[in-house]
Amino acid sequence: MPTQARGWGTEAADQPLKPMQFERRDLRSDDVAIKITYAGICHSDLHQCRNDWHNSRYPVIPGHEIVGIVTDVGPNVARHKVGDTVAVGTVVDSDLTCVECLNGWEQFCLGGATFTYNGVDKVDGSITKGGYSDHIVVREHFVFQMPEGLDPARASPLLCAGITTWSPLRQYADKVAPGKKVAVAGLGGLGHLGVKFAAALGAHVTMITTSPGKADDARALGAHDVIVSRDPAQMQGAAGRFDFILDTIPVAHDVQPYLTLLRRGGRMVLVGAIEPLPSIHGGLLIMGNKAIGGSGVGGVAETQKMLEFCAEHQLYPETETITMDKVNEAYERLLKNDVRYRFVIDVTQGL
Amino acid sequence: MPTQARGWGTEAADQPLKPMQFERRDLRSDDVAIKITYAGICHSDLHQCRNDWHNSRYPVIPGHEIVGIVTDVGPNVARHKVGDTVAVGTVVDSDLTCVECLNGWEQFCLGGATFTYNGVDKVDGSITKGGYSDHIVVREHFVFQMPEGLDPARASPLLCAGITTWSPLRQYADKVAPGKKVAVAGLGGLGHLGVKFAAALGAHVTMITTSPGKADDARALGAHDVIVSRDPAQMQGAAGRFDFILDTIPVAHDVQPYLTLLRRGGRMVLVGAIEPLPSIHGGLLIMGNKAIGGSGVGGVAETQKMLEFCAEHQLYPETETITMDKVNEAYERLLKNDVRYRFVIDVTQGL
Repeated sequence: MPTQARGWGTEAADQPLKPMQFERRDLRSDDVAIKITYAGICHSDLHQCRNDWHNSRYPVIPGHEIVGIVTDVGPNVARHKVGDTVAVGTVVDSDLTCVECLNGWEQFCLGGATFTYNGVDKVDGSITKGGYSDHIVVREHFVFQMPEGLDPARASPLLCAGITTWSPLRQYADKVAPGKKVAVAGLGGLGHLGVKFAAALGAHVTMITTSPGKADDARALGAHDVIVSRDPAQMQGAAGRFDFILDTIPVAHDVQPYLTLLRRGGRMVLVGAIEPLPSIHGGLLIMGNKAIGGSGVGGVAETQKMLEFCAEHQLYPETETITMDKVNEAYERLLKNDVRYRFVIDVTQGL
Repeated sequence: MPTQARGWGTEAADQPLKPMQFERRDLRSDDVAIKITYAGICHSDLHQCRNDWHNSRYPVIPGHEIVGIVTDVGPNVARHKVGDTVAVGTVVDSDLTCVECLNGWEQFCLGGATFTYNGVDKVDGSITKGGYSDHIVVREHFVFQMPEGLDPARASPLLCAGITTWSPLRQYADKVAPGKKVAVAGLGGLGHLGVKFAAALGAHVTMITTSPGKADDARALGAHDVIVSRDPAQMQGAAGRFDFILDTIPVAHDVQPYLTLLRRGGRMVLVGAIEPLPSIHGGLLIMGNKAIGGSGVGGVAETQKMLEFCAEHQLYPETETITMDKVNEAYERLLKNDVRYRFVIDVTQGL
């Protein structure tokens, strides 16, 4: 029997979030039922609520940085048991049979990955609803075990902001390592975790920011150096310096000044700018054998690995915890970049 | 004492090439003097003669795909001796002390690589003059030994067109190998060698061309498949297919249709388009962890290795040999893509 759930969502692009009731499906044989305790606020939650990407299906109940406790499991579930602290990220289903799934890239499933909210359930065709709610039902494969020693109250942003920055740093492990110079562009929810991860992986880390005022923050997060991108002298002085640049800037921007900062064979990876970029001169790539790429979240196995790395290194996002009823205020502050660096909703309060 | 050289060059952007006399330097201790027998015509020769890149220093004596015979060596030359058949490519000097040179990337020397023509000699400040001439004097390190069994009359285009396509295929050796799907975009002097190399390296090779009429040619060169880029059905049918795309198109073009042909983790490398590219949507890179890069010629050691690979596999460019006095007609035909696929000048004739 489906269960009644309570959450916060929005019914239209111009409406604030408000309390809602909706159904969660009955457990399938490989499902896990989770009482949600924490949900991080990702900027894409706001985009979806406001239909910025023109694909929202209302009501939208956002949230894909989910931490909670297992309350029930289907008969075929082996990896999780009632009482476990677990987590759910941006993807809740995929075919698990295609070459991408079999190689741990479930988010790029050739049969189509099902997103945690605003997605379409592969079995019953219903629209998925996210973590701004009291409980959720998720296929076992997409439920992460929270490692021993990782504080559930602070961990939820790892499930999207964390894996989105971790995955490219590991894909280019030869360029993000002791002795290598890494830069992170953009200091927000993604960028602050990029700095922490790159430093924990042993690289020399430089934060590139538009704001001189963020220098102290960047150093406190673990950056060894700071470059203010609006200062031409600083940018020229860093030409050819970096093995790798993680570009977390969430909007379209000219990537050419960053490409000039790469050394021969350098790589730059976008994780935020899902928009048409201004023109890139081919010569900036050809001279020095450089490349610019992108990276989208991460697969199941690497997400679990990242959580274990964070537990081992006691590496956490910087979070500000709010109660569920403060979500609309949080969205307004998010629009003004007024958060250091990620909101986490305690969904047990104010729901 | 400097020697008098005869060659063909041009005195201004709007002038045809004509016979000229000029000086070659006396041998330095690590120099090799070479009687030139063959010089390939690279499209950049034409660009430099016509000042298309606004950096030409007249008179321009082009030519950086050079084959010849050693006639003299300086006292410290160890690797070459009089009578050896040798070759010279696009670079004739670099500092040989920086991290790039020490790692075999002389073309990206941090102290500046000296190009074979239209460059500035590091010692005497003279403007370098290229292979459309009867002889040349080159620092030993930048002189390649012609392997046993490689026909000097057909090999010269390997020195630029060859290494420019070989180097990226080897940089991405994990994606250009048996069992991998490689596409080559653009069928000209570079592209036809890209097809031959990728096939010889064991990949499944697809030629992507605007012209259905080039399909038979592409297959004759070793392509296993052909896609006509102007046919939307063919392009859609190939979405997500390739591990690697070598893009040899020599002018600015929309790379987005090619990015959609890459599979997850796919890489695309530009070797021709040294121009501002039309906008790329960041989402095309982020979805599927793709990247677009560039590659510029190749280093000394990898060039020598390529020549040995070509000797072993008897892999040659397709060439049309002309005499020196036909160079202006050849340029006009080059502008109309009327060559399959590379002109070689027999500089011993018509000089």
